[in-house]
Amino acid sequence: MLAIPSQKYRAFPVVHLPDRQWPSRTLAQAPIWLSTDLRDGNQALFEPMNRERKLRLFHQLVGMGFKEIEVGFPSASQTDYDIVRHLIDAQLIPADVTPMVITQLREDLITTTVHSVAGARRVIVHLYNAIAPAFREIVFGMDVPQIIAMVEHHIHLLKRLTQAHPETEWVLQYSPETFCMAELEVSLQVCNAAIAAWDAGPQRPMIINLPTTVEVSTPNVFADQIEWMDRHLARREHIVLSVHPHNDRGTGVACAEQALLAGAQRVEGCLFGNGERSGNLDVVTLALNLYTQGIAPGLDFSDISGIARIAEECTALPIHPRHPYVGDLVFTAFSGSHQDAIAKGFAAQKPDALWRVPYLPIDPNDLGRTYDSIVRVNSQSGKGGIAYLLQRDHGMVLPRRMQIEFSAIVQAMADGSEAELSSQQIWDLFQATYMRPHQKGASMHYLGHRLFDDAQGQGIELQWLDAQGQPQTRIGTGNGPIAATVAALNLPVRIDSYEERSVGGGAEVSAVAIVEASFPGVPGSRFGAGKDANIVKASVLAVLNAAMRCGHGAG
Amino acid sequence: MLAIPSQKYRAFPVVHLPDRQWPSRTLAQAPIWLSTDLRDGNQALFEPMNRERKLRLFHQLVGMGFKEIEVGFPSASQTDYDIVRHLIDAQLIPADVTPMVITQLREDLITTTVHSVAGARRVIVHLYNAIAPAFREIVFGMDVPQIIAMVEHHIHLLKRLTQAHPETEWVLQYSPETFCMAELEVSLQVCNAAIAAWDAGPQRPMIINLPTTVEVSTPNVFADQIEWMDRHLARREHIVLSVHPHNDRGTGVACAEQALLAGAQRVEGCLFGNGERSGNLDVVTLALNLYTQGIAPGLDFSDISGIARIAEECTALPIHPRHPYVGDLVFTAFSGSHQDAIAKGFAAQKPDALWRVPYLPIDPNDLGRTYDSIVRVNSQSGKGGIAYLLQRDHGMVLPRRMQIEFSAIVQAMADGSEAELSSQQIWDLFQATYMRPHQKGASMHYLGHRLFDDAQGQGIELQWLDAQGQPQTRIGTGNGPIAATVAALNLPVRIDSYEERSVGGGAEVSAVAIVEASFPGVPGSRFGAGKDANIVKASVLAVLNAAMRCGHGAG
Repeated sequence: MLAIPSQKYRAFPVVHLPDRQWPSRTLAQAPIWLSTDLRDGNQALFEPMNRERKLRLFHQLVGMGFKEIEVGFPSASQTDYDIVRHLIDAQLIPADVTPMVITQLREDLITTTVHSVAGARRVIVHLYNAIAPAFREIVFGMDVPQIIAMVEHHIHLLKRLTQAHPETEWVLQYSPETFCMAELEVSLQVCNAAIAAWDAGPQRPMIINLPTTVEVSTPNVFADQIEWMDRHLARREHIVLSVHPHNDRGTGVACAEQALLAGAQRVEGCLFGNGERSGNLDVVTLALNLYTQGIAPGLDFSDISGIARIAEECTALPIHPRHPYVGDLVFTAFSGSHQDAIAKGFAAQKPDALWRVPYLPIDPNDLGRTYDSIVRVNSQSGKGGIAYLLQRDHGMVLPRRMQIEFSAIVQAMADGSEAELSSQQIWDLFQATYMRPHQKGASMHYLGHRLFDDAQGQGIELQWLDAQGQPQTRIGTGNGPIAATVAALNLPVRIDSYEERSVGGGAEVSAVAIVEASFPGVPGSRFGAGKDANIVKASVLAVLNAAMRCGHGAG
Repeated sequence: MLAIPSQKYRAFPVVHLPDRQWPSRTLAQAPIWLSTDLRDGNQALFEPMNRERKLRLFHQLVGMGFKEIEVGFPSASQTDYDIVRHLIDAQLIPADVTPMVITQLREDLITTTVHSVAGARRVIVHLYNAIAPAFREIVFGMDVPQIIAMVEHHIHLLKRLTQAHPETEWVLQYSPETFCMAELEVSLQVCNAAIAAWDAGPQRPMIINLPTTVEVSTPNVFADQIEWMDRHLARREHIVLSVHPHNDRGTGVACAEQALLAGAQRVEGCLFGNGERSGNLDVVTLALNLYTQGIAPGLDFSDISGIARIAEECTALPIHPRHPYVGDLVFTAFSGSHQDAIAKGFAAQKPDALWRVPYLPIDPNDLGRTYDSIVRVNSQSGKGGIAYLLQRDHGMVLPRRMQIEFSAIVQAMADGSEAELSSQQIWDLFQATYMRPHQKGASMHYLGHRLFDDAQGQGIELQWLDAQGQPQTRIGTGNGPIAATVAALNLPVRIDSYEERSVGGGAEVSAVAIVEASFPGVPGSRFGAGKDANIVKASVLAVLNAAMRCGHGAG
């Protein structure tokens, strides 16, 4: 690899555009957003989402404010076909939201696609085909005139099929797939042919969507390509110019931002950058980048952690702890000089004034998060910190967000004492915080529980002493003991994560359950822990302790 | 959040640079690389690296080809001070590698820093201070002339202190911290004052390092800032112009690329983008982006998975499955049309010709990786794939890379049969592949083992039948049973990951161990599994099976 790779790879040619305008412009408004989480994102999952997860994510996207959502590939998957029909037939699509469905250029697939969405109020039908030289030559064996004829033929078919359904407002989206790798003149010819075939105009809405199917150049080259297309595209005033960046070079967000400067009006992407290979454009990062420039994104991230948990559950993919705006570590400060500057910034920050806190590009509160200054308490030997000591001496493995929360609690204690904290002091503080929390008026003392089978899942009968010392007995059901416990407590608690593992060994073995809970109106989350030889009791204790930590008592 | 945030946030002002040149340029050579994994990266970890991990990562960085490495903050940490002295005193720094040490502008800290590196052949001393308005006003309460006087004073001190050590070649690096948020005229004044104070020239090497301490604008604005500084900096021909991008807006790589177009000659960053908050520049992505443009990066990534495992172990942070070039999923294809295009591309690809395989931005082989087409075998109900069925019916939880490997094996079987595979067939194939692999000449049949304590750690006496049916008994030691087993087998096996969990419950409970192993000269890795009520035996079986899967038998 230390050899020069110039025989195998070559610099992507620049666009000749000496009078380019985009680098002098500033972003001034949010684009139209298209979420392709349910299509491009879904296609890149080990286990594509089932109906339940797809519907859950669809409602999440609608709730965030997406007005255009690519809901599937109905001609390629019966699951997708059924979900699309269900969304339409059960009238689950709000009046201001337009679904999009994708299909390849094949007559039978286009026919199936139109069937899948017939009867909807408004639909975007998304046609695509690859046009770059490598695809023309290696994959399809077609020349440019043949490609153009194929595009025209299938758009004419779609036009005929949709004219039979005048009750629906039909929008065509055409994507010259592999645009970023194709000759600009070819892309323009194909797009203009598509525009003419659809007869785009005031009553015939159309989107031209230009992807970096695989990133192959620096983002400024993509911006030049977009500005060139913006200048040359036919019937430009009747076309919505859209981009669909991928992230193979780690520059998907930059491609989108610079394409918007260059004339794009719409972007396609996924929450947190899910998608084939290195992912699609991360629409969350782009939207929050706009927000920090004073531009309303039109999407709601006021509970970004809640959105993250749903996305993780639906995709079965993690979000990296350093992911911009949402990662567990992005509002932490480990360095003393950073912590000092941030503290001064918070002190100087006036309400309703321009945000000016050093090292925090955005107010964490705007996202329902909190800033955490992390103290690292070293043991005498200098060999480890809080998490290390808890694991070494007590077998406790803390989830990362709990490490962040607990380190602030340790810091508060350390600030109040001059001496270095011992491992025993840290463990005492951990137990007092997570395993025996007693907030004023929020005491719940576990007495016992009984599990039973219920038609709706797992049932639990739970007994505890309330803050007044009165015994309480309640029944709850859910899909497991934790959900059942939450139901029995009848508190507005949302369980965001759960871990249970064994501690100790042999006759001494017990289970430690750790539960992360969040509560309406309380930014961030709270953890609770429970320890017992019985794994269910450990979980119940963890839920009770997490609830108490938020000042909740059920009585 | 749906409100317009223009009162709290504001667009970052553009740079007036109508004759900017960078957007018309193409990258032509690699920059000088500075790894700050051991400093900026290390400062952002929950558990900063101990001496052993720091030295391990240092040797890794040297082995990859880094010629400049920031080794620590010796005046802020005794651990760092001791490691820096150890590197120098034990002569662990190769002749062509220059260490860098950072310090704030304080007389005692600068004195300690010079002590920490005295005697080295060549050293970069890195001075920094924040200069942006928010820092001048909120944090320090200093005006620009005071800032400049402070910089001059401390550089004069450093000059005097270093002149007492003429045996060392001293390089000054000055960073106007928070450069991206400061007024360009102020940055220039401060940098030029630093240049004059050091008297930069042919015999007085100096680096001016411009950070995006927190990303606050689109990357093109940063490129404009760099081009402006490149034009205006004093004694430009004697200065190495460096950048230090962070990643708060997810555009760190784009900032670095466009800064290089704008005149930067050197970049600072970390492996896989470790660093405070959303991380530092990911030097791996930037280097491989250059590589795909035909530019030799001067860094060796021919075993990128090995580098990834070491980085993960040293930082205790995961690498995301979609991370460019290195993530588990980036050389996978789930879609049939992508798989088809890739297959045609491989067939058409000639050796030593330009790389032209669709959907693969780089030849995975160049990184010691393999391309994986992922088939998704659905059960009859359409409710789940391979991983789902193995977990539901057999309690087996597969690590992601093992899912990728196994899906290719299932695909090969599915291609050979017309019918849909049943859950039982998938389980049989799993057992035959991972738990009873018998490759020609590579049979090792487990007979028994005995553990014993050894002065060097864990000892094992292992017995097996070799391919000729001969019993073998060998002894090995290591830091645990797995390392001891590898030692006993005396095979060139590297264990890349290990998982063990319980399957079943009650009297039926057993442990399943899964081991990922790699072998010299074999791209990618191979998994092996073992199942037994005894957790150590399960692990030993997993190691034997992984070794056999690579055609290795020890006898």
